[in-house]
Amino acid sequence: MIKVGIVGGTGYTGVELLRLLAGHPGAEVVAVTSRKEAGMKVAEMFPSLRGRVDVAFSTPEDAKLTECDVVFFATPHGVAMAQARELLEAGVKVIDLAADFRLKDAAEFQKWYAMEHSCTDLLAEAVYGLPEVNRDAIKAARLIGMAGCYPTSVQLGLLPLLEGGKRLIDTQTLIADCKSGVSGAGRKAEVGTLLAEAGDNFKAYAVKGHRHSPEIEQGLSAIHGAPVRLTFVPHLTPMIRGIHSTIYARITPEGRDTDFQALFEARFAGEPFVDVLPVGSHPETRSVRGSNTARIAVHRPGNGDLLIVLVVEDNLVKGASGQAVQVMNLMFGQPETAGLDIVPLLP
Amino acid sequence: MIKVGIVGGTGYTGVELLRLLAGHPGAEVVAVTSRKEAGMKVAEMFPSLRGRVDVAFSTPEDAKLTECDVVFFATPHGVAMAQARELLEAGVKVIDLAADFRLKDAAEFQKWYAMEHSCTDLLAEAVYGLPEVNRDAIKAARLIGMAGCYPTSVQLGLLPLLEGGKRLIDTQTLIADCKSGVSGAGRKAEVGTLLAEAGDNFKAYAVKGHRHSPEIEQGLSAIHGAPVRLTFVPHLTPMIRGIHSTIYARITPEGRDTDFQALFEARFAGEPFVDVLPVGSHPETRSVRGSNTARIAVHRPGNGDLLIVLVVEDNLVKGASGQAVQVMNLMFGQPETAGLDIVPLLP
Amino acid sequence: MIKVGIVGGTGYTGVELLRLLAGHPGAEVVAVTSRKEAGMKVAEMFPSLRGRVDVAFSTPEDAKLTECDVVFFATPHGVAMAQARELLEAGVKVIDLAADFRLKDAAEFQKWYAMEHSCTDLLAEAVYGLPEVNRDAIKAARLIGMAGCYPTSVQLGLLPLLEGGKRLIDTQTLIADCKSGVSGAGRKAEVGTLLAEAGDNFKAYAVKGHRHSPEIEQGLSAIHGAPVRLTFVPHLTPMIRGIHSTIYARITPEGRDTDFQALFEARFAGEPFVDVLPVGSHPETRSVRGSNTARIAVHRPGNGDLLIVLVVEDNLVKGASGQAVQVMNLMFGQPETAGLDIVPLLP
Amino acid sequence: MIKVGIVGGTGYTGVELLRLLAGHPGAEVVAVTSRKEAGMKVAEMFPSLRGRVDVAFSTPEDAKLTECDVVFFATPHGVAMAQARELLEAGVKVIDLAADFRLKDAAEFQKWYAMEHSCTDLLAEAVYGLPEVNRDAIKAARLIGMAGCYPTSVQLGLLPLLEGGKRLIDTQTLIADCKSGVSGAGRKAEVGTLLAEAGDNFKAYAVKGHRHSPEIEQGLSAIHGAPVRLTFVPHLTPMIRGIHSTIYARITPEGRDTDFQALFEARFAGEPFVDVLPVGSHPETRSVRGSNTARIAVHRPGNGDLLIVLVVEDNLVKGASGQAVQVMNLMFGQPETAGLDIVPLLP
Repeated sequence: MIKVGIVGGTGYTGVELLRLLAGHPGAEVVAVTSRKEAGMKVAEMFPSLRGRVDVAFSTPEDAKLTECDVVFFATPHGVAMAQARELLEAGVKVIDLAADFRLKDAAEFQKWYAMEHSCTDLLAEAVYGLPEVNRDAIKAARLIGMAGCYPTSVQLGLLPLLEGGKRLIDTQTLIADCKSGVSGAGRKAEVGTLLAEAGDNFKAYAVKGHRHSPEIEQGLSAIHGAPVRLTFVPHLTPMIRGIHSTIYARITPEGRDTDFQALFEARFAGEPFVDVLPVGSHPETRSVRGSNTARIAVHRPGNGDLLIVLVVEDNLVKGASGQAVQVMNLMFGQPETAGLDIVPLLP
Repeated sequence: MIKVGIVGGTGYTGVELLRLLAGHPGAEVVAVTSRKEAGMKVAEMFPSLRGRVDVAFSTPEDAKLTECDVVFFATPHGVAMAQARELLEAGVKVIDLAADFRLKDAAEFQKWYAMEHSCTDLLAEAVYGLPEVNRDAIKAARLIGMAGCYPTSVQLGLLPLLEGGKRLIDTQTLIADCKSGVSGAGRKAEVGTLLAEAGDNFKAYAVKGHRHSPEIEQGLSAIHGAPVRLTFVPHLTPMIRGIHSTIYARITPEGRDTDFQALFEARFAGEPFVDVLPVGSHPETRSVRGSNTARIAVHRPGNGDLLIVLVVEDNLVKGASGQAVQVMNLMFGQPETAGLDIVPLLP
Repeated sequence: MIKVGIVGGTGYTGVELLRLLAGHPGAEVVAVTSRKEAGMKVAEMFPSLRGRVDVAFSTPEDAKLTECDVVFFATPHGVAMAQARELLEAGVKVIDLAADFRLKDAAEFQKWYAMEHSCTDLLAEAVYGLPEVNRDAIKAARLIGMAGCYPTSVQLGLLPLLEGGKRLIDTQTLIADCKSGVSGAGRKAEVGTLLAEAGDNFKAYAVKGHRHSPEIEQGLSAIHGAPVRLTFVPHLTPMIRGIHSTIYARITPEGRDTDFQALFEARFAGEPFVDVLPVGSHPETRSVRGSNTARIAVHRPGNGDLLIVLVVEDNLVKGASGQAVQVMNLMFGQPETAGLDIVPLLP
Repeated sequence: MIKVGIVGGTGYTGVELLRLLAGHPGAEVVAVTSRKEAGMKVAEMFPSLRGRVDVAFSTPEDAKLTECDVVFFATPHGVAMAQARELLEAGVKVIDLAADFRLKDAAEFQKWYAMEHSCTDLLAEAVYGLPEVNRDAIKAARLIGMAGCYPTSVQLGLLPLLEGGKRLIDTQTLIADCKSGVSGAGRKAEVGTLLAEAGDNFKAYAVKGHRHSPEIEQGLSAIHGAPVRLTFVPHLTPMIRGIHSTIYARITPEGRDTDFQALFEARFAGEPFVDVLPVGSHPETRSVRGSNTARIAVHRPGNGDLLIVLVVEDNLVKGASGQAVQVMNLMFGQPETAGLDIVPLLP
């Protein structure tokens, strides 16, 4: 049994890790830290876990995280980078669900997250947690910076088109028009995500620039092997879970004869958590609710030169905690789907 | 034109006052205070008011509230009682939408609101702002403690049964099972009313005891002329606006031959904002969305001894700001419906 | 492996059976009938099942239901009673999720469901599918009429108070004020449950009388061993899944010294799917979303003579398909929780 | 007083016309037809209109529409074209909210709406009902084909960029990624827009091609004076009212030095129902809920060559019935804003 510690168990990615690990046959949560809630049973805060999760919150001091096999950071940005080194030195693997180890360029991190990076030397070592792109590196890694929720959906949607330097689409004019449920904003007391504010309402935000933009461009450029430019526009939609990314790509003259449906199907044929839908489909976010699957549809209206890729995922599962468990499975030689064979909840 | 000041314009009852007064032919908002947002245009915070409300937030010092004809307090509990005396002494009428002047018993106030009452002498003078009960007193008043949202719906639903010492129902076993949209909790950053928490979810709260219980019992007892006991159970429902109260009353032997439908219709025949629906109806909260109307249906299943009264209102209008404007109209000799002739928004 | 047939796989209880049975270690769905959709893969209609459910809809003729071990009817009322006899005679066990075998009195059935009962002789044999009440009878049964969604919640909430002729509460003045999400209305094209109609809205319905009233009273009377009277008022709340029942009971003089919390905890201590919350709790419907658990809290405000029991369940799981799987497990000697060890989805 | 008839008062655009006209000082609804509901008071079907709209549904025969000054068709596609000629010949002006008179090319109409056009000669006469583009033509018209909901938002968002042959943006690669609330689908009993299906869910639809595509391209080409190509991708978002269009346009070398904010502000300065937000804004659909206003924000991330225009409107008001009232006002010489001075409902 993998001994798991979780730093920050009071947010949505934390409780989602607990939900998934409660059903994992090869892992056991031995510690969940929260300085503020130390002593309280986790299931007292989240009654959905009653009878399934017996652990209590503990202080970081009491948690003995260095005795774990792996520690997940389900924390605000900046926490993992302060604690990762000590854990790694104790032989503990580290999976950060926040942004501390996503961006390779510390200056970029500082620009977008408004804090200095405190362990830049680890940035080079950290592996980007997106298994469909980095599976082998993840297996060998001891430090993972998990892909963000939006970036996961956008990269999966463009992966077959860009990888290996393919020249099927114009790589400088990509657009990702993305829509997220409010759980993506986290379990923070904020006016903007109150039901009375965000309910029955739709809006774009951060059109000027969003933290996930550099992450997406970094990821796509790595996939492509050359710089890729993408305009990312996030929107808030009045639902709890789910991301829907609508991606627009101009097909190049070289790409015009491509069978894009076949390309996507072939690329993801062996992937346990990516499902390419039949021609003409429109994936719904609820079709992946609670599960680690991303579903993708590819459209080319009028057989023209605009390719439209639709991607849905559950932002808290494939976009965060589920993908983190998938990564843990890879790091520890478990079956990749262990703990993740959940049928989506519909309706 | 009535010169209106609003203390606390950043919450839902404040912005709702602004919406309603923007369309009021005989009133003009001259000051809206917010120490924190002083200088900002109100319409910058609430773009729905762009082009309709031109006033900016001002500090209490700059607001010159003593030059207003009337000041509304759309503030947390405790603010109005600190400022009312000065305004009254300057000849300004005061309408408090919070709880400061609702309960006649200062000890009760202290028990439920966890603060001492700072001007108990004004409690006796304050008139309870529920026009269907207190119209004449309101006309003559200079200080109003507006009825709460739940209490308005429950008192309207029981008024015809209790007033004047009627003995149609058992007055000691009343039950009000009430359901509210989340705007009733106000525009405060709180985890419990996030869309990701309160959406797609239903729960009761404060079953042990809720602040509105003493207010309801005080009001019903005043209406009845004798002590009335009611069990009040509030629930949070995943919608923005609206209260639905389901009220259960045991019919007494004396009441058994009553035509309750006729009783309700007769009682509210002249009321501009209470609508008794035909026999067999089920009022929907959306049928009053955005309007000052309460709709009521009366049921007696199987012609038995249990009477069920269903009441819907928009908690921000008839349950708060709309009723406050109605009260202002009465105090200043305006037509009672001025500014309130709004057709509900459906769907 | 239990060979399972499902009649009516296109509604919510059908797709929920498929979700649950997809994860059941000891059962296999071999046929799903739908005359209209015959030939279509189930996962084509419900993409949430892609990769998890490979079966296609078949006509009743092709389905060879008589070769199944058990057949679930997830159909409109009236279908199961037309087909049950043939299946039973072929040795197939039958579990009806509709109302055909709930009411013992055929005249009552006819009154509430507006159709004649076509196999009244089977009514006597049919066992009521509520394991917490009827576990032994279920184990021995070959024909089950599953408890309805509302009735399950109300009976669980009153079971400890009524069973064995207990005289703790007044059995003639019970009230159940129940609130349901819209999936309870089924997957039928109807104006009343459109998002644009039922969203951001709250209403009561069927206050005059609802089909679940006679079922609840029949069940409670059987539990109590004497006639019980209950007023049932259902409400529609703008969420997808979940029922919240708020039950009001007058405590008798004999009941006054009862420790109700202890009574409930003791009664449900061994039940795998009933969770009694700590004193003072308010169960939320989302705390059971997607799971077969019902959670209950018991309140006695002011230590008075009114007992308030709060019960939440997922109407599609404990209120329908999950409970049906639980019943199947009992009938076939499987562990009662097989296929049902799902952690609720929160948020 | 303008005497108004409404054909088809049972759908959302019909009830919205009734809401708006109930508050119109210069118009009076004299007939609302519905063959199915003839005799029933409109307010019986829509209790929100109780006390405000006294008219009953009548059969087309009894409605005496030829005695009206204007008749609105709030009907399915195909109804208006069958009845328009008779009304026009009787001197009645006709405003069709459906698609019968939107497309100038009858073959296009037939292709997208799967029915033959029965009065193609009137197509040439019909004026497209989009006042910001066609105000003078509308004033002089007797037959209007109202702009669709999506097309209104997209055309307003591109109007300042395209009109008069401006060459600021590439007119062949425009993209409109649009999101609509479910009321846009109408008040029809359909599975896809049930709360249990469309709630807590997000999806694209009709990516292959949507009826509004030819309308948008026809409108933009007319505005521009040359062919414009636009890819239109509609999405369904779990809210009741509101459209949010996110429009992407490549800036041409000629356009690079344009002050787009100033361009938009200048263009719409005199428009009573178009509000250009300050630089950096993100319009929310709720900021126009229930009102006839469209709000627009213009973004140019990184001062690059991609222009992003965000447009919100209430699909039932500016996208349908409100704009139709605006058009009626123009046709009859009323103030353009008569009946439309509604403050949006927020929250």
